[in-house]
Amino acid sequence: MQQTTTLIWDTALNSTSMNDLLKKIPATLTWNGRIVRLLDQTKLPGLETYLDIDRVAQLEEAILQLSVRGAPAIGCAGAFGTVLAAREVDPGATGIEWLKHFDAACEHLAETRPTAVNLRWAVERCRHVAMTLVAAHATRDAIDAALEREALAILEEDRGMCASIGRHGADVLESILNGKKTATLMTHCNAGALATAGSGTALAVMYEAHQRGITLRVFADETRPLLQGARLTAWELTRAGISATVICDNMAAAVMREFKPDAVIVGADRIAANGDAANKIGTYGLSIIAKHHGVPFFVAAPMTTFDLTLKDGSGIPIEQRKRSEVSEPYGRLSVPPEAAVFNPAFDVTPAELISAHITEKGVYRAPYHF
Amino acid sequence: MQQTTTLIWDTALNSTSMNDLLKKIPATLTWNGRIVRLLDQTKLPGLETYLDIDRVAQLEEAILQLSVRGAPAIGCAGAFGTVLAAREVDPGATGIEWLKHFDAACEHLAETRPTAVNLRWAVERCRHVAMTLVAAHATRDAIDAALEREALAILEEDRGMCASIGRHGADVLESILNGKKTATLMTHCNAGALATAGSGTALAVMYEAHQRGITLRVFADETRPLLQGARLTAWELTRAGISATVICDNMAAAVMREFKPDAVIVGADRIAANGDAANKIGTYGLSIIAKHHGVPFFVAAPMTTFDLTLKDGSGIPIEQRKRSEVSEPYGRLSVPPEAAVFNPAFDVTPAELISAHITEKGVYRAPYHF
Repeated sequence: MQQTTTLIWDTALNSTSMNDLLKKIPATLTWNGRIVRLLDQTKLPGLETYLDIDRVAQLEEAILQLSVRGAPAIGCAGAFGTVLAAREVDPGATGIEWLKHFDAACEHLAETRPTAVNLRWAVERCRHVAMTLVAAHATRDAIDAALEREALAILEEDRGMCASIGRHGADVLESILNGKKTATLMTHCNAGALATAGSGTALAVMYEAHQRGITLRVFADETRPLLQGARLTAWELTRAGISATVICDNMAAAVMREFKPDAVIVGADRIAANGDAANKIGTYGLSIIAKHHGVPFFVAAPMTTFDLTLKDGSGIPIEQRKRSEVSEPYGRLSVPPEAAVFNPAFDVTPAELISAHITEKGVYRAPYHF
Repeated sequence: MQQTTTLIWDTALNSTSMNDLLKKIPATLTWNGRIVRLLDQTKLPGLETYLDIDRVAQLEEAILQLSVRGAPAIGCAGAFGTVLAAREVDPGATGIEWLKHFDAACEHLAETRPTAVNLRWAVERCRHVAMTLVAAHATRDAIDAALEREALAILEEDRGMCASIGRHGADVLESILNGKKTATLMTHCNAGALATAGSGTALAVMYEAHQRGITLRVFADETRPLLQGARLTAWELTRAGISATVICDNMAAAVMREFKPDAVIVGADRIAANGDAANKIGTYGLSIIAKHHGVPFFVAAPMTTFDLTLKDGSGIPIEQRKRSEVSEPYGRLSVPPEAAVFNPAFDVTPAELISAHITEKGVYRAPYHF
């Protein structure tokens, strides 16, 4: 894995459907036929640095370190991970051997982060393509090519999904605004272009509303411990020309009382069949505070985020992350060694606190009947 | 102002009423007849460093930088500030000149931080002593001595107040626990020994409960932007042998759902006549989340925190602090320069979200009739 700070790249995949607004935001993930290039999100907003990745182990490390994060984006990364995994199998392997190694690599990759369902979904989809071809005695070259086509298709679908979520969400927002051409919005973590291959989920709604001529003021929770709201959301919104104000997470209630936002819009990492939604830690508290102030609370996510095998949110696995994320912000000790730390990466917002789910297929309100 | 890391000091004022538990926590503020020694709270938990202060301008700087913070502690600091201010007036000044200079210095000192009422209360109390003596043509030495006595009295009263708040609060807690000998509590920011000259306000309740044999588990919000919960509350609780778990502020709702705390106890910087309480930013949101989960929410504060000139919390001035506290945690950029920052230091929790106010005089529940 090498680091580069140049921006020159074959961006054939990164231009067709991207409008002028999104051209202002560097692509989260690109593919040149051999290498996955990731914008290293751990370095933003100070540095725009890229990771060039051609081994699946490097990709897993990048996912673990959150160099690439956001449920749809790690789905796309996972898809290209299967392409890399297939190429790493010993060229002399038989069909069964090949499948055994490829399967093991896919399983390892899919388990890199447990909460978002998109990663496993994308890996399984690619794995299914490979298995079908192996069963048909296809050549290694044919399998490699098919996996690459599938990963590129997932990437393109992700872009289309973002655009569609943006349109549906902007329709909902316009109905709330009832002719008003300005809106105050709040969001948590980063559910933007950086979290997807396209314009985002929650932020796609904002980009679409901005393009429809609505003047936005967006309050972005900084989102401790890893500050994705401060570092990523504020960065991409301001790049796109949208006013962003960063607040500490604990200021959300004061902001709701003082600035009376029109809506809160967040993303999701997994949504159960009843509409309970797992998203970045803090989302649940924000939904309670929104309800207290009568502010509509929307979850914007692709249909792939729904896990219909889960009746409700209690079955969603919550990733616990390491102590130092909380106890050593930016490397300096903030928690005495004698104290414990609790660091769940996600929480579950119950469906009854969610005004509606905004998806690429339309807008769903509880009770859900999928 | 010089920095020292030695702990040797004339602690005559710091031993009499302090029990074994509190001896484990270094004193926030001591006075040796000439110098105010402050534990520099900006350096905790990494370093125990002290500031030796003999000029009122240095004291103001220490208050502004939050080297000393917490409403009761800055009240005590302000009282000694008037002692230093009196000594700084030109020895040749006439009575009227002396009063003019002393008054101006007191006013400047009282305005150092606007939200907590204790600072102005303590300064005014000392100023009143001086004015009475000036009117009686007392000598400069007599005025200096009277101011010192008054400041020491405020310090001693603060210690007694803390102990009394602790007893009243522990009574309330025991009634909630109904015979149970373990309790899970939450708190926000630092309302402990470090915020007072004694055992604290919210944390005084915990120290007293601990001494009564109740096993506590305390979740401490880290309290962005300045992390007083992580740095100070976790530090003093674990020093006293109480289990502390630090969480990011946005994890409070997840903790309430998962660990079902028995109560939230926080401090206050100013309380209006109707019971609305200003406290560290984030307290208001925490109170909403507590109500949603049916968790009792207590404010522990001395009677001096009540400002009966204010009908409700809307009249409490909220200090706005500088951008860099949010945008550059520990000196590293987390917010892009193009984004705005909103950084109020306090918010107001309405009386209806407060189960009771715990004071040194007893426990008050809304509606209040002072």
